[in-house]
Amino acid sequence: MSLTKKLAAEFLGTFWLVLGGCGSAVLAAHFGGDGNPLGIGFLGVALAFGLTVLTGAYAFGHISGGHFNPAVSVGLWAGGRFSAKELLPYVVAQVAGGIAAGFILWQIASGQPAFAVDPNAAGAFASNGYGAMSPGGYSVAAAFLTEVVLTAFFLIVIMGATHGRAPAGFAPIAIGLALTLIHLISIPVTNTSVNPARSTAVAVFAGPAAIGQLWLFWLAPVLGGLIGGMLYGWLGRERT
Amino acid sequence: MSLTKKLAAEFLGTFWLVLGGCGSAVLAAHFGGDGNPLGIGFLGVALAFGLTVLTGAYAFGHISGGHFNPAVSVGLWAGGRFSAKELLPYVVAQVAGGIAAGFILWQIASGQPAFAVDPNAAGAFASNGYGAMSPGGYSVAAAFLTEVVLTAFFLIVIMGATHGRAPAGFAPIAIGLALTLIHLISIPVTNTSVNPARSTAVAVFAGPAAIGQLWLFWLAPVLGGLIGGMLYGWLGRERT
Amino acid sequence: MSLTKKLAAEFLGTFWLVLGGCGSAVLAAHFGGDGNPLGIGFLGVALAFGLTVLTGAYAFGHISGGHFNPAVSVGLWAGGRFSAKELLPYVVAQVAGGIAAGFILWQIASGQPAFAVDPNAAGAFASNGYGAMSPGGYSVAAAFLTEVVLTAFFLIVIMGATHGRAPAGFAPIAIGLALTLIHLISIPVTNTSVNPARSTAVAVFAGPAAIGQLWLFWLAPVLGGLIGGMLYGWLGRERT
Amino acid sequence: MSLTKKLAAEFLGTFWLVLGGCGSAVLAAHFGGDGNPLGIGFLGVALAFGLTVLTGAYAFGHISGGHFNPAVSVGLWAGGRFSAKELLPYVVAQVAGGIAAGFILWQIASGQPAFAVDPNAAGAFASNGYGAMSPGGYSVAAAFLTEVVLTAFFLIVIMGATHGRAPAGFAPIAIGLALTLIHLISIPVTNTSVNPARSTAVAVFAGPAAIGQLWLFWLAPVLGGLIGGMLYGWLGRERT
Repeated sequence: MSLTKKLAAEFLGTFWLVLGGCGSAVLAAHFGGDGNPLGIGFLGVALAFGLTVLTGAYAFGHISGGHFNPAVSVGLWAGGRFSAKELLPYVVAQVAGGIAAGFILWQIASGQPAFAVDPNAAGAFASNGYGAMSPGGYSVAAAFLTEVVLTAFFLIVIMGATHGRAPAGFAPIAIGLALTLIHLISIPVTNTSVNPARSTAVAVFAGPAAIGQLWLFWLAPVLGGLIGGMLYGWLGRERT
Repeated sequence: MSLTKKLAAEFLGTFWLVLGGCGSAVLAAHFGGDGNPLGIGFLGVALAFGLTVLTGAYAFGHISGGHFNPAVSVGLWAGGRFSAKELLPYVVAQVAGGIAAGFILWQIASGQPAFAVDPNAAGAFASNGYGAMSPGGYSVAAAFLTEVVLTAFFLIVIMGATHGRAPAGFAPIAIGLALTLIHLISIPVTNTSVNPARSTAVAVFAGPAAIGQLWLFWLAPVLGGLIGGMLYGWLGRERT
Repeated sequence: MSLTKKLAAEFLGTFWLVLGGCGSAVLAAHFGGDGNPLGIGFLGVALAFGLTVLTGAYAFGHISGGHFNPAVSVGLWAGGRFSAKELLPYVVAQVAGGIAAGFILWQIASGQPAFAVDPNAAGAFASNGYGAMSPGGYSVAAAFLTEVVLTAFFLIVIMGATHGRAPAGFAPIAIGLALTLIHLISIPVTNTSVNPARSTAVAVFAGPAAIGQLWLFWLAPVLGGLIGGMLYGWLGRERT
Repeated sequence: MSLTKKLAAEFLGTFWLVLGGCGSAVLAAHFGGDGNPLGIGFLGVALAFGLTVLTGAYAFGHISGGHFNPAVSVGLWAGGRFSAKELLPYVVAQVAGGIAAGFILWQIASGQPAFAVDPNAAGAFASNGYGAMSPGGYSVAAAFLTEVVLTAFFLIVIMGATHGRAPAGFAPIAIGLALTLIHLISIPVTNTSVNPARSTAVAVFAGPAAIGQLWLFWLAPVLGGLIGGMLYGWLGRERT
């Protein structure tokens, strides 16, 4: 497969992740106002994020590997599953695809007359945050710990489910639903990132408060990805 | 497989899609009145639409390919996966199956003494709409953009998950859950179509306002299907 | 496999279906009282019923075929997939397993001090009903139509997903999630049966009103099973 | 595979089970206070527990078998699928991994300024309980019966789905979703254990009332595991 097509697949897959995950959060989570159970809530958003990866991995996995996430690309490199020389192009394609989806999502959302984004509200335009920008008001330390641990386990599931001894073909189900699980745990803490491209994609539209906290959503997921990739790199090695 | 059986499968599969998806919306989404969390809400309707396709594709996929949707048939033709000469019969069978399901759904729904359809209410009898007929009051431009983009990605997932290099047998899971994801994003915008047969099937019972907006739910999904089919046609081609 | 083990598997599988599906409805659907979104609602009950069959079919399918439902056994016989001489023993084992589960569920539920069953309330102890005993007050005609059509499609999915040309191994997913879909549509109408053993299992504990309506939940599902079995018997036949 | 790696996999898998299942319960189930449908409720917690096992079994199953639960290890031993000499090390690794996750979860949860655990509240810090410590106030007898029956069926699904005649590769889906189903039924009764390591992992942080009831959540799941393991041991034996 040519690098062009791999990058196109990563662009489209990350577009899909942001459009589906952040889109469901912006458009459908709170439908009818808080207290209205017609809206899909955190459970629906968790499912949507997971399904973007499940469906994207079946659609694009055989083209690009289906990372859609800089922390995943870094973690797979750390675990010996991805080449260093494709790392930077993949990350660029992921961030570009995410921002393109953020732009389209803004076009759709602003088609509602009452649409407005309060840049100082936690979770504004599906942005990630800590402290005053955390949905549940969690501290920066809790946010950092959460993003590191959950990204590490995300990588462990990715590397375990795609291991040569795991049953073939099921990895997109395991990986997609791992992302759903991660959201079920941590939306209240950070609005859930584990993916710097996803955080960047909406922060640039959410405003300066979200942009000012973006450092954590690059640092913690990448650190978690490195830990998870190296840990499974040891665990899954055939001879010890 | 004979064309008769293929068309019977498309008729039954689209019947199932409309009965299950629109049926859950009409009968169960708002159970007990707004504010009652017993009802299945948008999350339940999103799941129902996806499961009609997941189950229908396992049941009928080996007979007709399991399109159940004119935009899918058109997109697969554009992507080189479906023959032009079966296109029209497939679309006729899909629309007929959908309308038959709309009729049965009306019989069931009207078995409740309080049953009434307000033809000017957004989402009446599970109809699709924009502007005043959009559940969230979204503009015609936002509705058009949403339907084009989501149908394009639906085709990308369909063509990717059924590609020769994708793991065999999993396509109905990926495709069905892609439709769930699409609903998680866009029920507030258009009540989610991405399928002209589904829109037509209930519009003819919902009344003149829904029928008057039906053009968008043919034009935008078919356009999106063409874009997605051609895009993946390039992306998935073995030699470039 | 000996008939003894087949019948043990059908007993246990139907026990699991009733304990899980009706158990979630009785114990968890309304937790905290109506209006409390902690309870799992109709969506949770729909998922529970489907998961009993998904998990039961993987556990017992290779022993007994995993019917757990007299309407399924009859429909598979009508479609040429099940022998007439095992039909009656299977149905007896299914009904016995269901009633045993109803008894255990009663023991558990009555461990809550406030436990009480109003025999004249719609859906009492997860019973099925029409008219005044329908959750949404649907007429007997609507209830009958619903049960016939949904059981027919349940058989179509079962026969299609286990057809020799369908991908192997996925049938329990398709069949279990078809039962989830059926509940997403029809809990408001009849509290959803499509399974005479499930209806009988709780009616005997719910009281005379539920028992008096049990005829419909044998007649309509069995009729639907016959229609679905014969319809797919034609559709899936290799030579026509 | 070396015993060291097996125990590391059981440690990490049980960590994931407790972090994901109990974490979603502590952090996300009640988000915004009772009555707020944004929170994931019992349905979201049930899904989270199941997904920890689904994803963990794909990630670690080929290393350690993916038990993550002393009652599963005991039940598999009773059913002839697991060696007695690895039983104790597995149980130690599971309990240690669970407690480590409880510790990390406490660090995250206490990052919210308003965080407090009332040691006498039912379900405090996701602990299991009966009587006054049962979410729905269920008696000790109902709690015991529930845990025995559900753990027995959990073992039956585990042994059935991993049987040589079951379709290969699907077991993690069946087993994970069986755990979801078990939670959909029984969160109101005991807050659902079926896993002594999970109960112990949070009881040590929840306080003396939870610790004082821990005996039931070792005794009943282990007894259920023995019953289920022996029952399927007979049912699935090839010659009888």
